[in-house]
Amino acid sequence: MARVSQEHLDARRRQILDGAALVFARNGFHATSMQDVLKEVGLSAGAVYRYFSGKEELIGAIVGEVLDVVGGVFESAAQQSPPPLPDEMIPRVLARLKEVRPGVVDHGEWIFPRLMLQVWAETLRNETLAATFGTGYDKVRAAWARVVEGYKTADLIAGNVDADAMARTMIAIAQGFAAQMAVFGELPPEVLRNGVRALMSVRDPRADN
Amino acid sequence: MARVSQEHLDARRRQILDGAALVFARNGFHATSMQDVLKEVGLSAGAVYRYFSGKEELIGAIVGEVLDVVGGVFESAAQQSPPPLPDEMIPRVLARLKEVRPGVVDHGEWIFPRLMLQVWAETLRNETLAATFGTGYDKVRAAWARVVEGYKTADLIAGNVDADAMARTMIAIAQGFAAQMAVFGELPPEVLRNGVRALMSVRDPRADN
Repeated sequence: MARVSQEHLDARRRQILDGAALVFARNGFHATSMQDVLKEVGLSAGAVYRYFSGKEELIGAIVGEVLDVVGGVFESAAQQSPPPLPDEMIPRVLARLKEVRPGVVDHGEWIFPRLMLQVWAETLRNETLAATFGTGYDKVRAAWARVVEGYKTADLIAGNVDADAMARTMIAIAQGFAAQMAVFGELPPEVLRNGVRALMSVRDPRADN
Repeated sequence: MARVSQEHLDARRRQILDGAALVFARNGFHATSMQDVLKEVGLSAGAVYRYFSGKEELIGAIVGEVLDVVGGVFESAAQQSPPPLPDEMIPRVLARLKEVRPGVVDHGEWIFPRLMLQVWAETLRNETLAATFGTGYDKVRAAWARVVEGYKTADLIAGNVDADAMARTMIAIAQGFAAQMAVFGELPPEVLRNGVRALMSVRDPRADN
């Protein structure tokens, strides 16, 4: 039996995940069969099932990987002093997703946000996926909270700010923009940046004295 | 033939929409049949089809109504001088949805956000629903932009702020919180308020001079 390098195994695994992400994004998780995945990936059933037992495992792997990537963006931001401001962080997260999943393109449009939307909907009826998503979400939330602590250290926000509430809000912005892109198509990063910056710039008369 | 009052017709219509919203939220749009709707509503097929031709028309009516309600919240906020700040607006929108759809409850939890998530996912494969949603979304976006103009008039933000980008960002926050509630359960309004207020309070060193 020929020895297969780890590099080859990793590349094959990536090829399968990329193809599966594309067909799930394009046609939805439910309307997609393993046959559709095999066809897109261009591999035999034997080759694919060596890596993944089925659709459930594929979507779980995609979700886990994406949330790791997002978490990583915040982990490295939290190391910076001060961390980049929210209006830089939101476009950065979406840019990073595009770097990691550049191939999820249909008719020239990056449709990865559609996959995100479908994953959220799928967690409502799939407990295994809900658990995977929940674990990844908690990591992202904790990493964002560390970024908020970095803002406190740099005196960019008050020390008594609820870091978890702010983390949830920042995640909500990223999720909401993803939902808008899924439904209406891609938004330029400037829109995200200007919108978040505008919100940061609101003068709060209650805080004026 | 007995005369039927408009009041009776409206109440019947409301009863059908409430029941349909609950079963769609609970089981998903696709997994729900018109039989499930009839059973939940407790009316005969003849009574229900007098008002709605089927699931498509039901979901379209629910979406149109909800977006009208959300738009109304912003319309009336835009009339105030100054309009309530974003950290008040976000919890207000979700509170208003709960007032309008109090019956979408399963095991004691208000599960309306699950319906929102499913509607967004459904727009990806249903062009009629996508058109209804798009029209309602544009109205909400325009109404939010008028609130932003109100902030400008009250000198709460700079006159050159991109009102549409800010409107999209505020909608993203509401959408993202809805997604989080759909997946993880209800969030207390204080979390939304504190999170948005924290974001508004970030000091931007680039703007310091």
